Amino acid sequence: MPSRFSIFTKKVGLPPGQAVFTGEQRVPAVRMGWIRYSPGEASSGEVSNPADLPSPDPAAGDILWVNVDGLHDADLVKAVGERFGLHPLAIEDILSVDSRPMAEDYESSIFTSLKMLTVSPEGSIQSEHVSIAFGPGWVLSFQETHGDVFGNVRSRIRNPEARIRSRGADYLWYALLDAIVDHYAVALSRLGARIEGLEDEVWSEEPGRDLPLRAQEARHELLIVRRAVRPLREQLYQMTGDCPPLVTDATQPFLADLEAHLLQHQDVLDHLRDAVTSLLDAHVSVVSMRTNEVMRVLTVMASIFIPMTFVAGVYGMNFQYMPELDIPWAYPVAWLVMLGIAVTMLAYFWRKKWL
Amino acid sequence: MPSRFSIFTKKVGLPPGQAVFTGEQRVPAVRMGWIRYSPGEASSGEVSNPADLPSPDPAAGDILWVNVDGLHDADLVKAVGERFGLHPLAIEDILSVDSRPMAEDYESSIFTSLKMLTVSPEGSIQSEHVSIAFGPGWVLSFQETHGDVFGNVRSRIRNPEARIRSRGADYLWYALLDAIVDHYAVALSRLGARIEGLEDEVWSEEPGRDLPLRAQEARHELLIVRRAVRPLREQLYQMTGDCPPLVTDATQPFLADLEAHLLQHQDVLDHLRDAVTSLLDAHVSVVSMRTNEVMRVLTVMASIFIPMTFVAGVYGMNFQYMPELDIPWAYPVAWLVMLGIAVTMLAYFWRKKWL
Amino acid sequence: MPSRFSIFTKKVGLPPGQAVFTGEQRVPAVRMGWIRYSPGEASSGEVSNPADLPSPDPAAGDILWVNVDGLHDADLVKAVGERFGLHPLAIEDILSVDSRPMAEDYESSIFTSLKMLTVSPEGSIQSEHVSIAFGPGWVLSFQETHGDVFGNVRSRIRNPEARIRSRGADYLWYALLDAIVDHYAVALSRLGARIEGLEDEVWSEEPGRDLPLRAQEARHELLIVRRAVRPLREQLYQMTGDCPPLVTDATQPFLADLEAHLLQHQDVLDHLRDAVTSLLDAHVSVVSMRTNEVMRVLTVMASIFIPMTFVAGVYGMNFQYMPELDIPWAYPVAWLVMLGIAVTMLAYFWRKKWL
Amino acid sequence: MPSRFSIFTKKVGLPPGQAVFTGEQRVPAVRMGWIRYSPGEASSGEVSNPADLPSPDPAAGDILWVNVDGLHDADLVKAVGERFGLHPLAIEDILSVDSRPMAEDYESSIFTSLKMLTVSPEGSIQSEHVSIAFGPGWVLSFQETHGDVFGNVRSRIRNPEARIRSRGADYLWYALLDAIVDHYAVALSRLGARIEGLEDEVWSEEPGRDLPLRAQEARHELLIVRRAVRPLREQLYQMTGDCPPLVTDATQPFLADLEAHLLQHQDVLDHLRDAVTSLLDAHVSVVSMRTNEVMRVLTVMASIFIPMTFVAGVYGMNFQYMPELDIPWAYPVAWLVMLGIAVTMLAYFWRKKWL
Amino acid sequence: MPSRFSIFTKKVGLPPGQAVFTGEQRVPAVRMGWIRYSPGEASSGEVSNPADLPSPDPAAGDILWVNVDGLHDADLVKAVGERFGLHPLAIEDILSVDSRPMAEDYESSIFTSLKMLTVSPEGSIQSEHVSIAFGPGWVLSFQETHGDVFGNVRSRIRNPEARIRSRGADYLWYALLDAIVDHYAVALSRLGARIEGLEDEVWSEEPGRDLPLRAQEARHELLIVRRAVRPLREQLYQMTGDCPPLVTDATQPFLADLEAHLLQHQDVLDHLRDAVTSLLDAHVSVVSMRTNEVMRVLTVMASIFIPMTFVAGVYGMNFQYMPELDIPWAYPVAWLVMLGIAVTMLAYFWRKKWL
Repeated sequence: MPSRFSIFTKKVGLPPGQAVFTGEQRVPAVRMGWIRYSPGEASSGEVSNPADLPSPDPAAGDILWVNVDGLHDADLVKAVGERFGLHPLAIEDILSVDSRPMAEDYESSIFTSLKMLTVSPEGSIQSEHVSIAFGPGWVLSFQETHGDVFGNVRSRIRNPEARIRSRGADYLWYALLDAIVDHYAVALSRLGARIEGLEDEVWSEEPGRDLPLRAQEARHELLIVRRAVRPLREQLYQMTGDCPPLVTDATQPFLADLEAHLLQHQDVLDHLRDAVTSLLDAHVSVVSMRTNEVMRVLTVMASIFIPMTFVAGVYGMNFQYMPELDIPWAYPVAWLVMLGIAVTMLAYFWRKKWL
Repeated sequence: MPSRFSIFTKKVGLPPGQAVFTGEQRVPAVRMGWIRYSPGEASSGEVSNPADLPSPDPAAGDILWVNVDGLHDADLVKAVGERFGLHPLAIEDILSVDSRPMAEDYESSIFTSLKMLTVSPEGSIQSEHVSIAFGPGWVLSFQETHGDVFGNVRSRIRNPEARIRSRGADYLWYALLDAIVDHYAVALSRLGARIEGLEDEVWSEEPGRDLPLRAQEARHELLIVRRAVRPLREQLYQMTGDCPPLVTDATQPFLADLEAHLLQHQDVLDHLRDAVTSLLDAHVSVVSMRTNEVMRVLTVMASIFIPMTFVAGVYGMNFQYMPELDIPWAYPVAWLVMLGIAVTMLAYFWRKKWL
Repeated sequence: MPSRFSIFTKKVGLPPGQAVFTGEQRVPAVRMGWIRYSPGEASSGEVSNPADLPSPDPAAGDILWVNVDGLHDADLVKAVGERFGLHPLAIEDILSVDSRPMAEDYESSIFTSLKMLTVSPEGSIQSEHVSIAFGPGWVLSFQETHGDVFGNVRSRIRNPEARIRSRGADYLWYALLDAIVDHYAVALSRLGARIEGLEDEVWSEEPGRDLPLRAQEARHELLIVRRAVRPLREQLYQMTGDCPPLVTDATQPFLADLEAHLLQHQDVLDHLRDAVTSLLDAHVSVVSMRTNEVMRVLTVMASIFIPMTFVAGVYGMNFQYMPELDIPWAYPVAWLVMLGIAVTMLAYFWRKKWL
Repeated sequence: MPSRFSIFTKKVGLPPGQAVFTGEQRVPAVRMGWIRYSPGEASSGEVSNPADLPSPDPAAGDILWVNVDGLHDADLVKAVGERFGLHPLAIEDILSVDSRPMAEDYESSIFTSLKMLTVSPEGSIQSEHVSIAFGPGWVLSFQETHGDVFGNVRSRIRNPEARIRSRGADYLWYALLDAIVDHYAVALSRLGARIEGLEDEVWSEEPGRDLPLRAQEARHELLIVRRAVRPLREQLYQMTGDCPPLVTDATQPFLADLEAHLLQHQDVLDHLRDAVTSLLDAHVSVVSMRTNEVMRVLTVMASIFIPMTFVAGVYGMNFQYMPELDIPWAYPVAWLVMLGIAVTMLAYFWRKKWL
Repeated sequence: MPSRFSIFTKKVGLPPGQAVFTGEQRVPAVRMGWIRYSPGEASSGEVSNPADLPSPDPAAGDILWVNVDGLHDADLVKAVGERFGLHPLAIEDILSVDSRPMAEDYESSIFTSLKMLTVSPEGSIQSEHVSIAFGPGWVLSFQETHGDVFGNVRSRIRNPEARIRSRGADYLWYALLDAIVDHYAVALSRLGARIEGLEDEVWSEEPGRDLPLRAQEARHELLIVRRAVRPLREQLYQMTGDCPPLVTDATQPFLADLEAHLLQHQDVLDHLRDAVTSLLDAHVSVVSMRTNEVMRVLTVMASIFIPMTFVAGVYGMNFQYMPELDIPWAYPVAWLVMLGIAVTMLAYFWRKKWL
């Protein structure tokens, strides 16, 4: 099981800029697919050797999108990266699946790495490292495993009417980022539903004994989402602040829109985080109130019956000379005394509002 | 019931800039009303087709305000927006009822979206997505449902003496924002009263068992208000910092005043939030004190009567050879011993100030 | 009783810039006093009509200070303001007694509104809205009610030797602000003493049952002071950063000094706030320790006497065939057994350090 | 006893810039000592009249350091200050022993006030207001009482080899600041040791009942140190950012070093503050665990013996017709039943891990 | 044992810029090793006198790296530093093992001090003060003791193919920083594992009694790591923001990468800190729930058996005239009454869901 805190130490001691895969192999074999499109036509294919990739013709408006699933073959990733002139540090970042989301302008290309969040069938949130780079006429995307959230982008590319067909590589890059960021909402929505469930449970008659444990788990997953959202927003904000020339004016407002989405996700994250924290406070509060109630029942029962039992105990003593024992009306009087004690205690508790 | 955290996932997977309504239909039919006024005259009407809208004559000082109630007909909203040259992303924001308040200067028009807060008859706070855009001679407002807080603005427009008649579209835009922001005070005032009520209840003799639950609800509603107030202030502040040319100098101080109001609302929000948090702390404190008191009663009762009952129990034993049983003054002595125990315990508790 | 959170909704629905008094009438009649002074002479008077106010001669170094007590007559306030050319928004702020402290440079005049804090005889802190504006040769001050902290300033003006006589209107304006800010120290000092008293009480033998309630009240009053201090400092800082021309160089260092005082008040506020928060934490801690002690007494008493009572109970049974009952030394042995139980339990608790 | 929160109200109502001593007289008489030195020679003396002070000859590299112990004679302090041309507000700050640390560049001189922290024999931290000003060829220092941390600086001045002899007044000024800031480490070290002691005590077998009280005291003293460190750092940082011409280039790196020390003290303060806070949390946690343990013992004892006592009570009843009483083996069976109850309960508690 | 808060007071009272070792001697003798390399060749050696160090020929691309283990011989450290023209304040920082991480550009050289974190065999984190400076053609590193994390760098230097051989002194300096920062991940990983273990233990059946103590220890160690990471990042960020000329363009992206690593470590630190805090909250929550459960058992047992015992006690009284005693069916009826009480109580608790 991976650590809850995702601290990786695989690269400790290696020289910097080293292309080393820091994760675990998650697919049997690397799969490398490409799509080439221009306003007029679109084709796609799959190759196993970077040298077999088609060459786009930027002058003709050709865009080539290469998607690599599986990162364990560091040499292949390196070969693909070098084919398109990626910076060595960018290639290192593609392979460091534990690294922070980042956005860097390398002049000849723009490189972004981010986390793709998916919800497993059991409802827990999975984070996958995805890197997306683009330059004039090409976009590269690298994922740890098969299965992604790009299906919609692919079908839009296949549609000759779609706006994406007539835009440049920067728009495709944006579209891929947007697809990933859109899916953050799914993860947040799941987490939100779980936290709402926990809130309702706190106030229910019988909250589960492991409720704080489940709250803690939700908190951990919130942090996974936060570590995907916050650095990405910061990095995008910083990069777009400098207006990188590779991003065209037509794409700029879309990027601003993307940042607005990330900001909104961050608001929701803050709200959820606040909710989890106050949920645990409320739980302590509820448990305290219940303990108080339990103690009240005990105190009332014990305070009524212990003195009465004492009276009974006194007249159960076997002394020879206990004048009361011989008086005919002593027994009813004893009862009266005992009932008097009970009534006094009840009145006392009634006045204290413990009943 | 909508989620407490307003995370919407309707648009996941759609291409960006898509005009899709993300909320739920809240009115049977879209209603589109218009008011046209100039310093000299004012007229109004209702149309069902954007093409039927009157055309203002900016040169003559004509202002046209079009208000659309109901957003489920995305095509109609799009048609209205395009009629006035709104940016596609602005149209998308009008329809994304879950989006964050924003203010954007699109040069040919200024677009703002914000949350209109109303208090339901049961006292809970409702948030509605409202978008207001303006350009030279026109103002557009879009709401999710009928019923708004603009009644006052409408009657001022009908009044030929009112300042609003002689000002431009930017002033009307401001007046609509101001009407919405003014109503935040109503929501805050209701929340404040509820929280004060909760505070008083904490210290009352018998706080309700669901008090923390109600505090939690108030906290959720505070967050709804905060998510209306804070981003709006930030966005307005950012936009007005750049002095958009569409906002005239005469309107600038009014906008500054609006921001001051939002700042004040934020202060109140911080105060209320602080109050709710410390209210829960105080509640735990009070419950602890009460539990302590309950335990003290139990301890005093048990510590006095259990030893006495033991003494009684001893002389209730049936051993043949218990010399004390035959002594005539043994019974009164037993009573003295028992009373001595009681007095000792009472003195002990008295010294400990537990009585 | 006014709300603890000072949220006012009186102006909701009114057009902006409207001169409407938002508070409650606190004086039977508005009183309007004036003082005119120059280095050489000083005179004062009281008028009921703004038109009767004397006209200062700035060229001759004349300064006119007009002080208005009572704001319920909005027309009169408006008349005074217009007489000196105040901006409509400034007049609105004078009357909005619930508005945030602010400082605005309207070029022809500088307008500041702030909160005057006074300590009521019962020790609670009262906040009053005061507005002070000045222009060349004149200073206006507006208060909600009679009684202020300006007595000292008045007597300095009457003293021909005092520095204030030879300085401009900006210095008088500063002197009035300074008098108010100085009095914040009185409010803070009272609050500090109350909080110290609460701290001492937490550790006393018998803290009052309403201690958390009183801590909560102190917290509310801290927030009243904070809402007077913090925005004022921010607003002054922002305004003086721009070096408004109406403030002469000779007055600048005094303003810096004023800001330093406000900063110091803020430090004290933070300290007090921290003290109140940790006071409540300490209280919970103390109550927990006391409950623990109570429980220990109960547990020790019950654990010693319940087993002994059981032994006594056994030999109180009436079975025909209980061989022990007939043994002569059985009774002393029973006592030994019971004492043995008691000693064992005592030793156990001793080892656990519960005694 | 002074207030824990050091809020002084002595100057309320006085005109600004007034030279009024706001503290308490702490020395019987003001003592005024001077040291004059140049690279070549050094002399010192004590005078009672500012007019008797020697006049340094800056051209000859003469530096005059005047140190005043005792501030209650405001006129004398004023006379000294005016002799060297200090700004009236600086003189006011010298006498306002309750004012915040500050650093101000008055062009002809630089003025700093700060807090000298000393540890009393009983281990509590004392804060003393010290002001240090310098101009070309002179340095003034003002203290509330005798006894300071400058002994080392004095002996360095007496040493003809020391670097300080060949540097300007700005270096001496720095050296005095440095001596004071160095001693902050002593105060922090003492506080650190106390807090460590408290931490160890929390986990000890028998934490003192007044542990939270002592933690609270440590917290108050932390705040005293923080109020000495933080504003000083801010003020120095702000002043040196503007490169005041009186501070020579040779002294600049030393000032940077001083700020680094203050930053480090701040780190330690944050650490200690965090430690005190979590110490109290841990204490509540420990007390809760202990209460839980106490309750477990009580519950085990009561749950075992109360049912057994009931059985004994049943056969202690005196009904005529109780068939069991006459059965010979009934008594051993009763014992078996009672032991069975005990074993059952023990097994139950064993399974629950309460034993 | 060193203080948990690392506050050192050794240098209090010394003149600034003094080369004084503030730590404890940790090696028997200072060891001074050197490595000289150029793209073509590499040699190394060990000397005991700084004068015996080889002189690099920067023109020929020679780089000399001198590493000093052991700082207790302040004169030797000073001699080495002066040999390469280090600033006196830099030499002071090398010896102040308690000082904050820093990065300073002294124009002729760049000086950085940082903390090397190692994990002791028992799993606790050790912090060692390391200083690294470089100028054209040389790099100096100073450590408190033998044993470091530079082994990898050394072997890369010995490899004629390695990139490091053809780069300048700035790259070597970066490589050493990188080696240290890489090892922070090891420390974080260990701490993460410990905190995960604590989290699992909180929810286990029987959390250790010293769990809060161990959480507190983890918290202290987190602060040690934080005090290594945060200031280093700030200082590097500030220094590289000014583009020091000694750092070549080829090394810049590597430094940016280093800062990204530090940022990531900081994220992990925040996550871990959050985890420890919420762990203690969860622990209190769990203990409260368990106490509640214990109390419920006690209350149920006592509430059932105390009333039954009372009934038995009543008929154990020895009054002469107790008519019930003579009725033949009284005994079974008494049983019925007692069982009725038990069933009633059980039903009551069942309804309350306490069973």
